[in-house]
Amino acid sequence: MQFLSDNAASVHPRVWAAMQEADSPDSPYDGDSLSRRLDDEFSGLFGREVAVLWVATGTAANCLALSALVPPHGGVICHREAHIEMDECGAPGFYLHGAKLLLGDGAHAKLDPAGLAAVLDAVRPDVHQVQPHAVSITQASEYGCCYTPGELAKIDMIAGPRGLKLHMDGARFANAVAYLNRPAAEVAGPVDALSFGFVKNGAMNAEAIVFFDPTLADMVQFRRKRAGHLQSKGRFLAAQILAMLERDTWLHNAAAANAAARAIAEGAGERLLHPVEANEVFLACSAAEREALRAQGFAFYDWGLDAARFVAAWDTRADHAEALGRAIASL
Amino acid sequence: MQFLSDNAASVHPRVWAAMQEADSPDSPYDGDSLSRRLDDEFSGLFGREVAVLWVATGTAANCLALSALVPPHGGVICHREAHIEMDECGAPGFYLHGAKLLLGDGAHAKLDPAGLAAVLDAVRPDVHQVQPHAVSITQASEYGCCYTPGELAKIDMIAGPRGLKLHMDGARFANAVAYLNRPAAEVAGPVDALSFGFVKNGAMNAEAIVFFDPTLADMVQFRRKRAGHLQSKGRFLAAQILAMLERDTWLHNAAAANAAARAIAEGAGERLLHPVEANEVFLACSAAEREALRAQGFAFYDWGLDAARFVAAWDTRADHAEALGRAIASL
Amino acid sequence: MQFLSDNAASVHPRVWAAMQEADSPDSPYDGDSLSRRLDDEFSGLFGREVAVLWVATGTAANCLALSALVPPHGGVICHREAHIEMDECGAPGFYLHGAKLLLGDGAHAKLDPAGLAAVLDAVRPDVHQVQPHAVSITQASEYGCCYTPGELAKIDMIAGPRGLKLHMDGARFANAVAYLNRPAAEVAGPVDALSFGFVKNGAMNAEAIVFFDPTLADMVQFRRKRAGHLQSKGRFLAAQILAMLERDTWLHNAAAANAAARAIAEGAGERLLHPVEANEVFLACSAAEREALRAQGFAFYDWGLDAARFVAAWDTRADHAEALGRAIASL
Amino acid sequence: MQFLSDNAASVHPRVWAAMQEADSPDSPYDGDSLSRRLDDEFSGLFGREVAVLWVATGTAANCLALSALVPPHGGVICHREAHIEMDECGAPGFYLHGAKLLLGDGAHAKLDPAGLAAVLDAVRPDVHQVQPHAVSITQASEYGCCYTPGELAKIDMIAGPRGLKLHMDGARFANAVAYLNRPAAEVAGPVDALSFGFVKNGAMNAEAIVFFDPTLADMVQFRRKRAGHLQSKGRFLAAQILAMLERDTWLHNAAAANAAARAIAEGAGERLLHPVEANEVFLACSAAEREALRAQGFAFYDWGLDAARFVAAWDTRADHAEALGRAIASL
Repeated sequence: MQFLSDNAASVHPRVWAAMQEADSPDSPYDGDSLSRRLDDEFSGLFGREVAVLWVATGTAANCLALSALVPPHGGVICHREAHIEMDECGAPGFYLHGAKLLLGDGAHAKLDPAGLAAVLDAVRPDVHQVQPHAVSITQASEYGCCYTPGELAKIDMIAGPRGLKLHMDGARFANAVAYLNRPAAEVAGPVDALSFGFVKNGAMNAEAIVFFDPTLADMVQFRRKRAGHLQSKGRFLAAQILAMLERDTWLHNAAAANAAARAIAEGAGERLLHPVEANEVFLACSAAEREALRAQGFAFYDWGLDAARFVAAWDTRADHAEALGRAIASL
Repeated sequence: MQFLSDNAASVHPRVWAAMQEADSPDSPYDGDSLSRRLDDEFSGLFGREVAVLWVATGTAANCLALSALVPPHGGVICHREAHIEMDECGAPGFYLHGAKLLLGDGAHAKLDPAGLAAVLDAVRPDVHQVQPHAVSITQASEYGCCYTPGELAKIDMIAGPRGLKLHMDGARFANAVAYLNRPAAEVAGPVDALSFGFVKNGAMNAEAIVFFDPTLADMVQFRRKRAGHLQSKGRFLAAQILAMLERDTWLHNAAAANAAARAIAEGAGERLLHPVEANEVFLACSAAEREALRAQGFAFYDWGLDAARFVAAWDTRADHAEALGRAIASL
Repeated sequence: MQFLSDNAASVHPRVWAAMQEADSPDSPYDGDSLSRRLDDEFSGLFGREVAVLWVATGTAANCLALSALVPPHGGVICHREAHIEMDECGAPGFYLHGAKLLLGDGAHAKLDPAGLAAVLDAVRPDVHQVQPHAVSITQASEYGCCYTPGELAKIDMIAGPRGLKLHMDGARFANAVAYLNRPAAEVAGPVDALSFGFVKNGAMNAEAIVFFDPTLADMVQFRRKRAGHLQSKGRFLAAQILAMLERDTWLHNAAAANAAARAIAEGAGERLLHPVEANEVFLACSAAEREALRAQGFAFYDWGLDAARFVAAWDTRADHAEALGRAIASL
Repeated sequence: MQFLSDNAASVHPRVWAAMQEADSPDSPYDGDSLSRRLDDEFSGLFGREVAVLWVATGTAANCLALSALVPPHGGVICHREAHIEMDECGAPGFYLHGAKLLLGDGAHAKLDPAGLAAVLDAVRPDVHQVQPHAVSITQASEYGCCYTPGELAKIDMIAGPRGLKLHMDGARFANAVAYLNRPAAEVAGPVDALSFGFVKNGAMNAEAIVFFDPTLADMVQFRRKRAGHLQSKGRFLAAQILAMLERDTWLHNAAAANAAARAIAEGAGERLLHPVEANEVFLACSAAEREALRAQGFAFYDWGLDAARFVAAWDTRADHAEALGRAIASL
C-alpha cells in the first residue's frame, strides 16, 4: 500500500487512449492538431484568452514560466520551503541565468502577506542587492494547503503596486481546485503564469504552462526550444493534457486523491502537522510508530525525525486509504 | 505519402507494449527497475562499461552531453551545418553558459580532418579568443552521410593530442550502424559521449546519452535535473529505450528506413546531392518538378530553391518509397 | 618607435590631473559628484538626453550595452571580423547568457546593407533558429574604416522595420568623428547604445556606455554591479572621462592619431589593404619587408602572412610616423 | 570627519607614484613587466608558489575565484551576511551560471563549524538539491572580526574531507593580518583561492586574486577576459598592487586603520555589538544619539534602527578617531 508520492502514480486509462489515438502522422513539434487546440481549451477553462505551452516536467514548467517574468539580474520571492527552492537542484538559477530566490515565510508553506512584506522590506532599493521582479506561490503548497481567493488577492495587493509579476506553481493545482471548490480562474487568481500540473494527477509526462498574458508564450516558445523541451512528437503531450481536461478528468482525479487523504487523516486528530486540504497528510509520529505502520504494509517517507508524509494519488485505493486511516487512529 | 521527416514517424508497437507494461508502481525519477538496467544494456551493446541517462529530446541529449565536456568559457568545434548550430535555437549557448560553437567544413555536412584542422589553426592560443575544448560530429550527418571508422580515427588523431573531447550527435546513429554494418562500438569510435537517438526510429520521446567515461554521468545527472529533464515517471522513458534495444529493434528499424531511402534514390542518378547512406535523400529538382511530385501525393520539404529533401522512417511503406523512386526516375 | 597598438598608449596629462584632483573624499561607487555629471556632459555632446555609465573596458562596455538590447534566447548580427566575435573571448556569450552572434559581411570589416540582409534572409523565422534582436556595428571598424551617416541610415532602414536594436562599438568612435568631421550625434547615427571608447585615446581605464534611451541605463546599472564593474572609487573613472571631454581633448587626440596614420600611409600607395580613415594602417608587405622595417626600429604586428598592421595613437610622435611613412615608401 | 566607509578612502601616495612611473610604453593587458612580477611577489609573501591575477573590484575577485572552484550546478556555503550574499547584486549567480549560495550561521558574521555543519547536514545528497562544492569565508568578516588560524583549521577539518574547496573573501585581509599579527600564510590558512583586497586599503582600483593552486589561474584568465576584466593597460593595476606590497605598505595601512577603530571604540564599552578587531565599529545607539554624533560633525551609516557603523581607513586621522571615541564615550 503505497503512499510515497503521487509522482509514482499510474497513468489514467483515458490518457493512454488519447496517446494511442495520437499515433498517426501529424505535424512535428507543436504544429499538430492536438497541440493547436490547447489555447482554446484552457481559454475556455479560465474564461479568458490564455496561451499554453506543454512541457514534460513541473520543473521545466516553473522555470520557463519564471523566465518570462524575471530578468537575469532580478529576484523571485517564494516561500522558504517552495519546490523551486528546495527540490529543483537550482533549476531557477539555470533558467533565469543566476536570478535569485528571495525566501519568505508563512504557515503551511504558504507565503503570507506578512512574509511577503518582510522580504520586500529587507531589500535595499539599490544596485548592491537583487531586486524582486516576481512572486512565486504554490497552489496547493508543499504541505498540501491552499490559498483561498481572498488570500491570493492579499498577495496581489502587495505585489501589484510594486510591479511584481505573479507565478503559480500548480503541480497540484487540480487538488487545490477540488478542495476550494471554486472555478479554476478563482483558484489561479491574479497570476501572470501558471504551471498547471498533470503528471501527479494521471498523465504520464505532460504539464501545461498557462500564460494569462498570451504574448509571453511567443517568447517562451524560444526558451522552451533552447532548453531542449520542444519534443518532436509533441502531439503525445498535447494528447495527455486534452484527455485530462476532457470530462473534467483532472478534477475528478484530484477530488479522489483529496478524498483519500481525508480518509487517511480521519482519525489523526492532533497529530496532523498541517490541515489536510489537498492530497497530502503530514503526521507527527515517532520512529517506532512509523515502523509499526510499515510493518502493516504501508509505504511512505519519513519527514524529518518525528514525522511522516503520506501522499494520496488519483489511483489510491479507497480501502488502502481507509486502512491507513485506521492504522493511524490506532497508533 | 509522407516523406517530410522521421520526426513525425509513428511509435513502434513494441515501444507501446513496453510503456504499458511499465505502468505499475515503481520508484520515481530514475530509481525504477527499468532505468537501472540501462547502464548494463548499453555496456553490453558497446562491449565496455558505459553509463547512460535518458532524456526526452535530442537537443537535450546533445547539450547535456556537451555540458560534461566543455566549460562555459570554452568552444565546441562542429560542422557549419550541424544540428547544434542550425536547428537547436542556441541550446548549446544555454546549456554551456555561453560557450561558443566554432564552425568547420567538410563535404556532406561531415567535418573532415582538413576542416577540423582549419578551425584549430585559426584560433590564436591567447585569452582573447575562445579556445576549443571539444569536437562534436554527427553520425549520420545532416545529409545522411556516415563517418567510417577510419574517418573517425582521423578526427581523433587531430583532436586527441590537443586534449579535445569528442561528442557524437547520434540522432540517426542507428541508421549509421545499419549502413556501415559494423558494431556499434566502431560506429561510435573514440567518442567520449554519444547522443543515441531513438525518437526518429520508433520511440515516442526517449533518447539516451551514453557516457564512455561513466563518471561523467554522475555529474550530468545534476545538470539533467536542473534542466527540468528528470521526469518523475522516468520508467516510461527507460521502457521505450529498452524496447528499442530488445531484439535489435533499433537496428532493424533503421535498416528499414535506410532501405526505403535507397528505393527512393534508386533512379535519381545524377540528381543526388549527397550519397544516400542513411535514411535521407537530397535531390536536385526544380520547383516545377517538386510540384509534379506533390501532385502525385508525395509530401516533402523544399531544400532551398532548387532541391528537395525526402526522409524515410522506420514505418515508411515500401510501396510508397518505391512509388516515389519511380516518380523521381520519371522526372 | 612603437606602432603595435593604441592599447599601449600613455595616459594624457589632463587625465592624470583630473584623477589626482578627484582624490578627495566623495561618495563611493557612482554617487560622487563627477559620476553624476556624466549624463549632462554627454547629453550636451549629443544634443539630446542620454544616460551614461562608466566601465573599465571596452569589452564590458560592449557586452553590458548589448545586454540591454538582446534577450538570452536572441541573436546579435555583427560583422564576421567584429571585435565582439574575434577578440573578446566569448564575452557576449557570457553577458548575454548564450545569445548568439550572427555573422555578416561587408568590405573593410564594415557590415554593409547587403551583408545585413543576407544574414536576415538566412534565418528561418521559427523556434529552431536563433532570431536576431540587434545589430552591432563598429565605428571605426576593425580596419579603421568609418560608416558615413548615409551608410548608418541604410543599416537602420533595414534594421528598424524589423524591430532590431542598434549597438555601436565605438572603441575608436573619437577617431571616426575626427575623420568624418561631423557632429558626434551624426557619427553615432540612429543607435540605441554606444560604447564610447577613451582608453585607446588617452584615458587609463575608463569607457562610457551611452544609452540614447535613458531608461536602459536604469537596468544596466544592475548588470554592471553584478558583473563586478561598479568600482567603489568610481570617481576616478568619471574624472578620466570628464577630462577627455574637456576642451575636446578626445577629439584632438583622435585627430592627432589619425594624422599620424595618414603620415604612415603617405607613400604606401597600392600596398594599402584598406582606406586609411582612422588611426590604423594595413599594409601588404612580405616577411622580408617587415623584417627590414623592424631593423629600422619600427615595432608592429604581422597581419597574417603577407601583411602588417600599424596603429597610431594620440601620443605617436609625428617624426616617428613620418619616418615610418618614408621607410614604407622606400620598400 | 568621515567614517562612512573605507570604500571612499583616498589613494596612497606610493600608489600614485607607482602608477605614474608605469606610464611608459609596455605590453598591453597583463603581458607588461609589472603584471609579470605579481606571481613572484605573492609567492614570496605566502612562502609558496601561487599565481595571481589582478582585477578592478572585490566583487570580480570573489566571483572569478569562485568560478574556478564551483561548477554551474553546484553550491557555495557562506555566511548569511556575507558580502557575496548581501551586497554583490547576485554577482555569484552571474559568474557561476546559477550556482547557489547556501547560507550558514555563526557569531559576528563568521561562519563557524557548527554553522557549516548545519548547512551540510540539511542538504540531501540527491539530484534534487544543489550540492555544495565550496565554502567561502570572509577574513575579516562583515563585522570586522577575524578567523584565527585555529578557527580556519576547524573549518577545513569539516570541508576538506568532503572535498569542498575553500575561498576567502579578503576585501579586508590586510586588516586581519594586522590584527592577528601572524604571517599572511597563516591568516589565509588552507584556502584554495583568496581575494586579496587593496582598494579599501590605499589602492585606487586593483585587487588581487591569489590562487594557491597555480593551475587555476590558467583557467581563470579566460574567465577574466570574457568578463571584461582584462584591462588593456593592466600595468596600472599591477603597479598599484606592487606599490602596496612594497615596504609592507598594505600592512602598515591596515594597522593604522585598525588602530583608528580601536580609538573609536575606546570608551564604547557595552555598546559594542561586535569585538573590534579590524577597522570597523558597530555600536548600539539610538536615533537621538546618532543625531547627536552627527551634530558634532561625524559622518557614518545607520545600522538598522538601533545601531551605527563606523569604518576607519588607512587615512583616517588619529585626532578624528579619538574625537569620535570621546564623543561616543560621552553619549
